Amino acid sequence: MRGAFEVPPELEPLQAWVFEGLERVVDRMESATGSDIPAVAELCRHVERYRGKMLRPTLTLLSGAAAGAPSDEPPSDDLVTAAAVVEMVHMATLVHDDILDEAAIRRGGQTVNTLRGNETAVILGDYLIAAAYALCSSVDDQAPARVVAAVSMELCSGELLQLDNRDNRSLDEATYFEILRGKTGSLVGACGRLGAGAAGGDEPTRLALETYGRRVGVAFQIQDDVLDLQGDQAVVGKTLGQDLGKGKLTLPLIHHLQHVTQRDREASLRLLDALSETGDSTPTDQDDASNGVLAVLDATGSIAAARREAERLVTEAKDALQNLPDSPAR
Amino acid sequence: MRGAFEVPPELEPLQAWVFEGLERVVDRMESATGSDIPAVAELCRHVERYRGKMLRPTLTLLSGAAAGAPSDEPPSDDLVTAAAVVEMVHMATLVHDDILDEAAIRRGGQTVNTLRGNETAVILGDYLIAAAYALCSSVDDQAPARVVAAVSMELCSGELLQLDNRDNRSLDEATYFEILRGKTGSLVGACGRLGAGAAGGDEPTRLALETYGRRVGVAFQIQDDVLDLQGDQAVVGKTLGQDLGKGKLTLPLIHHLQHVTQRDREASLRLLDALSETGDSTPTDQDDASNGVLAVLDATGSIAAARREAERLVTEAKDALQNLPDSPAR
Repeated sequence: MRGAFEVPPELEPLQAWVFEGLERVVDRMESATGSDIPAVAELCRHVERYRGKMLRPTLTLLSGAAAGAPSDEPPSDDLVTAAAVVEMVHMATLVHDDILDEAAIRRGGQTVNTLRGNETAVILGDYLIAAAYALCSSVDDQAPARVVAAVSMELCSGELLQLDNRDNRSLDEATYFEILRGKTGSLVGACGRLGAGAAGGDEPTRLALETYGRRVGVAFQIQDDVLDLQGDQAVVGKTLGQDLGKGKLTLPLIHHLQHVTQRDREASLRLLDALSETGDSTPTDQDDASNGVLAVLDATGSIAAARREAERLVTEAKDALQNLPDSPAR
Repeated sequence: MRGAFEVPPELEPLQAWVFEGLERVVDRMESATGSDIPAVAELCRHVERYRGKMLRPTLTLLSGAAAGAPSDEPPSDDLVTAAAVVEMVHMATLVHDDILDEAAIRRGGQTVNTLRGNETAVILGDYLIAAAYALCSSVDDQAPARVVAAVSMELCSGELLQLDNRDNRSLDEATYFEILRGKTGSLVGACGRLGAGAAGGDEPTRLALETYGRRVGVAFQIQDDVLDLQGDQAVVGKTLGQDLGKGKLTLPLIHHLQHVTQRDREASLRLLDALSETGDSTPTDQDDASNGVLAVLDATGSIAAARREAERLVTEAKDALQNLPDSPAR
């Protein structure tokens, strides 16, 4: 993982501290999901390859450092556990999301639902979330288990709200943001709160890092929604253009439908309908339909507007940290 | 619920105590799954009707009484919480099992997967399990959360082992029992342990009631597997003959395949294959195929053997309680 991104020289000791923590996070996840039953162990090994940039554990470790975890000793066991728990919850949601999205590819490998069927994917996701709860209730403090349970409810509520608005062409920005706060912001916020808590941070520090995480999480999801429209499968590493095909309206489209004339709005809706119906069509058909949608989004500057919104949220996220003591982690 | 079963007069005070507890369990489940999001609240109201005989909360309350909960005051808050948690975990598994089983009917109503799609059923089950974890981590003791998390892992492991053995015509009894201990015994065992724990029972008492629950749970599942072959949809209240159609070999069939001659074994396997292939056929076709299977099972006395095994487990379950002090609840 070393060298995945460049950091200024003054941050190199912190980077080394995080890398050491991440190696232990991986070990902890493996032992927490391990099973004596060969069939279960094999499935857990399969989903290990879903691990990508480990953004959530990294944010958890950094939140611990920002809340005062000493940089001259390795990350504490409780901090490593917190980082492992958020990644396990995330992996469980990936396994279940792939069923929802009917996705065939995840990080360049086949998804569990494709390889072993939806049934196995449902129960494997349940197993991973149970392992996450078991791990977080193993520490000598009830706070992490309470945070993880509450956040899991928020996360599912966001997903259910999104499913309830499938094919809703009148989805408004307020509901879109409510969905994103639930399905993405909540868990990234938990990284901040759990990391700060494991490092002994007080409530204002926990809240500041949770708020930072929640805002960054929503910004990240907007970026992800933009990439779903524009991205390149080789870069994003998952099946693309899924949102439109599954009737999900995302920020660029909501912005567009709010800013076109009534006549153009109807033309855009017809384009979206065409794209929704290409579920079983060839990649070329899908590309044609996607390019049509991208052209109309461009006309109203809607991709740029979504990007600006994500940037605004990142700025707001940084504001949440202004009262924290200065540190490399901050 | 009153009058659902007859009890001798000396048990009537205990029955009244349990009924009072169950009413509070229902309230606690409703407040634990409640949501400000109308779409989520509506789904939770839908699954409320899955509540049947409330066997698991009843066993939890009775375990509390057997472990010393005073019968002259209402069940304690912690005991009611424990009973609500096990039923919520059970309901989450029902929602996910209906996806696995492609079941259309549950307790006379449509399943979530049929009504709202598999995606919603996946996430609603996740929401219910998260609410169960949130509720059990709300009490002032870490033990219940640890039990519920560990048991959820066991439960999923049993289901994964079952999925891994789908269409395995050589499934042996040892693996069948390992599946049942995981997918059914573990949660019923948790009723005993959590009920005893909430009532302040010591470790031998908790273990005795857990062991009782585990054995009764496996016996109950054998009975359920027999009913799947023999039952009447109006009585069982769910879609029938699912196990064979989904390639699940259950105890009567395992017993039969072990006890027929090699030549009859091949004829039986052809019958099973025929039944597995009738997934989309008419109810009459399915009845014909089922009747054929029932006839060969009868020839080896395999239904009776499965019933005897369930009875033996119930006797063993009662043995686990022999060191508990005598009480109406015991």
